[in-house]
Amino acid sequence: MSDKVLKIGIAGLGTVGRGVLRVFEDNQDLLSRRAGRKLEVVAVSARSRNVDRGITLDGYRWFDDCVDMAGADDIDLIVELIGGSEGAARDLVTTALDNGKSVVTANKALIAHHGFDLARRAEENGVGLRFEAAVAGGIPIIKSVAEGLCANRCEEVYGILNGTCNYILTEMEKSGREFDSVLFDAQRLGYAESDPSFDVDGIDAAHKIAILASICFGTRINFDAVAVEGIRRIAPIDIEYAEELGYRIKLLGTATMVNGALDQRVEPFMVDRNYSLAGVEDAYNAIVFLGDYVEDSFFEGRGAGEGPTASSVVADIIDIARGNPTPPFGVATSDLADLPATRPEELEASFYVRFHVEDRSGVLAEISESLSESEISIESLIQPTGAEDGRTYVVLTTHETREGRLRDALARLEKFEAMVDPPLFLRIAAVSEDDT
Amino acid sequence: MSDKVLKIGIAGLGTVGRGVLRVFEDNQDLLSRRAGRKLEVVAVSARSRNVDRGITLDGYRWFDDCVDMAGADDIDLIVELIGGSEGAARDLVTTALDNGKSVVTANKALIAHHGFDLARRAEENGVGLRFEAAVAGGIPIIKSVAEGLCANRCEEVYGILNGTCNYILTEMEKSGREFDSVLFDAQRLGYAESDPSFDVDGIDAAHKIAILASICFGTRINFDAVAVEGIRRIAPIDIEYAEELGYRIKLLGTATMVNGALDQRVEPFMVDRNYSLAGVEDAYNAIVFLGDYVEDSFFEGRGAGEGPTASSVVADIIDIARGNPTPPFGVATSDLADLPATRPEELEASFYVRFHVEDRSGVLAEISESLSESEISIESLIQPTGAEDGRTYVVLTTHETREGRLRDALARLEKFEAMVDPPLFLRIAAVSEDDT
Repeated sequence: MSDKVLKIGIAGLGTVGRGVLRVFEDNQDLLSRRAGRKLEVVAVSARSRNVDRGITLDGYRWFDDCVDMAGADDIDLIVELIGGSEGAARDLVTTALDNGKSVVTANKALIAHHGFDLARRAEENGVGLRFEAAVAGGIPIIKSVAEGLCANRCEEVYGILNGTCNYILTEMEKSGREFDSVLFDAQRLGYAESDPSFDVDGIDAAHKIAILASICFGTRINFDAVAVEGIRRIAPIDIEYAEELGYRIKLLGTATMVNGALDQRVEPFMVDRNYSLAGVEDAYNAIVFLGDYVEDSFFEGRGAGEGPTASSVVADIIDIARGNPTPPFGVATSDLADLPATRPEELEASFYVRFHVEDRSGVLAEISESLSESEISIESLIQPTGAEDGRTYVVLTTHETREGRLRDALARLEKFEAMVDPPLFLRIAAVSEDDT
Repeated sequence: MSDKVLKIGIAGLGTVGRGVLRVFEDNQDLLSRRAGRKLEVVAVSARSRNVDRGITLDGYRWFDDCVDMAGADDIDLIVELIGGSEGAARDLVTTALDNGKSVVTANKALIAHHGFDLARRAEENGVGLRFEAAVAGGIPIIKSVAEGLCANRCEEVYGILNGTCNYILTEMEKSGREFDSVLFDAQRLGYAESDPSFDVDGIDAAHKIAILASICFGTRINFDAVAVEGIRRIAPIDIEYAEELGYRIKLLGTATMVNGALDQRVEPFMVDRNYSLAGVEDAYNAIVFLGDYVEDSFFEGRGAGEGPTASSVVADIIDIARGNPTPPFGVATSDLADLPATRPEELEASFYVRFHVEDRSGVLAEISESLSESEISIESLIQPTGAEDGRTYVVLTTHETREGRLRDALARLEKFEAMVDPPLFLRIAAVSEDDT
């Protein structure tokens, strides 16, 4: 074992920070043995010192201002667990790297927005930058795609990347309840934030797929190019029809190459019940990686929470302590491409479409005709089963069509007198998965 | 990118060797970018030069004797794809390491038998030794447990580690056919070797679980301590009853700590249909890792075949080219413990037991009484549904009991006049998995 102790400063002592301290308390010897050198948390910083966190901070030097930690001579590695793409988190990480300290972070927003800049700073200063916990919690997916699967040209990477949404969708499925009511309960149980929009509007998953896409396709991270749609509009009726059609509704983040352009999106998909992803329930996360040699690989585990997230943060610390030189995004920043983005409307897919309409004769014919005029071909159509308050649903699936064509057709249909709400459409996942 | 080219020699040009050459042909630039230096296959060796492998060997220096490659000054890294725990494979790897060359191998038998010795040689000579392809083909499970999950104290690791057995069991389930008939077809289709015993008797899976256990529990590899039972005795009747009881029969390799001792085994288990592992079909492999912080993680992918195995071999080459210093078994060999082995008969479990008996009155009572005398408590008993040739089956599940106790009881029952065959018993998987 090397004599050189790795001295660690942790900024942010919320759930994950507490988890990291606990791992070090419990597994200290094991971790040092695996790192090949002693690991020691020497300093901590948080907004307030006197919060009851259920752990003692006595053994650690305290910093009121976390950015000061980045200037401390006796700290080798900074763990950033503050969150947010700007402010203290960004200042801390930037300063630490510029001062020649390695950084481990769980901050997906920071990496999604500034990952390229930060990786370049790490490179210039010859230090490590790792962010395993930023994507899919305890699943070691970044290490897997950057290292374990690095012999492959990636064809597609996609998955369930937000545990809150998956929990809500699973609960809606089990209970038949409305989105709002399930969200309310999820908030009470701590599965959803009091401001849930980062999760339920898909932004969190978009951060994660942008990070994965950058590594898998060797391109500069391009968060702004992710097409994002959340799960607020999913209604019990959609869950019911999904069941009837043999699907489950899952919020997926997907990244694919289409004719030399990178398609990144987050949206609720209809996923075939026989696909592995359809069986991923509650707050679990899962990722499918398709490569030219490995074919399909599937990873599932806990996507959040104190223990699983701390597991990834501490593994990153050990990776840096060992001296693993793999670049943060798998290749040197100078080798990262700048792939163009697809125009989402040009992509072809099959869709599920749900109309909420006045229950009167002729509506079905109006819809069919209008779609037919737009050259959208209907694969199956489910007749309304029972009207409520004089209103009913019409549900159909289409054959493959351009998304732009469908959008245009639905924009026209939305103006029809009989429409109660704007139509909802969901992509049907055409994932190349042979298994299960 | 570093100027230093990594020069590679490949020994063994069967399916995997051909796959590795193909990956290099297809993805050369990508691989070098990821490795941060040029990777070049400069030499090859195989039993016969003039076999049509569907690839040209023109660009490579040929060695009649692979061990000579280990002495060539212009080769930095040896890829051993010969197979077998002794002979040429062992000579080549030992000599290469002793000569200061890194080694990548897909050889599970070699690592299971000599992994500790080889890791020590790698350490002494300051070179890399990697064997990702030795366990679960394309799934990067060794990297995941040695690196991605290294913050955890492992509680249990288990999985479907032999694709041939999983294919046979899946086929038996789908078709209702006998083991021998399905094996025969599997051989014709290339899913099973002409001598299938390594696979169907569980030895291949035992090699793999011994390797995983060593890394997960930080102990010297101890292949001889693995309790091994294959799938030859599984009959269509067992598949049927599994279905009826809510299980699927899967050959699992498992490694667990029990009171400070390491329990390693390979045997067919009854796996609850709701567990992720139960859904793993055909030739796929899958592994569950349980750690104190990450909780449960699940990995699934192709366990064999040209592409997936080559994917792991080439990833190992890149890992060494990058200079990742993680020791082969996750810690320095001097830090590997020498954990005692459990005595399998002392472990408690619930069991499925199937008796093939003469169809006459009193047999059921004899069985029940005998088990009761041995203090084995029956949880459920399925009455024979119809006799054939005057013979029938009695199937039961037990409450938790010591394996030794059950073995003794069945040894006594085997001598009963009414027994047609020795009774078959299968452990019911009590895996700590919350997810489905």
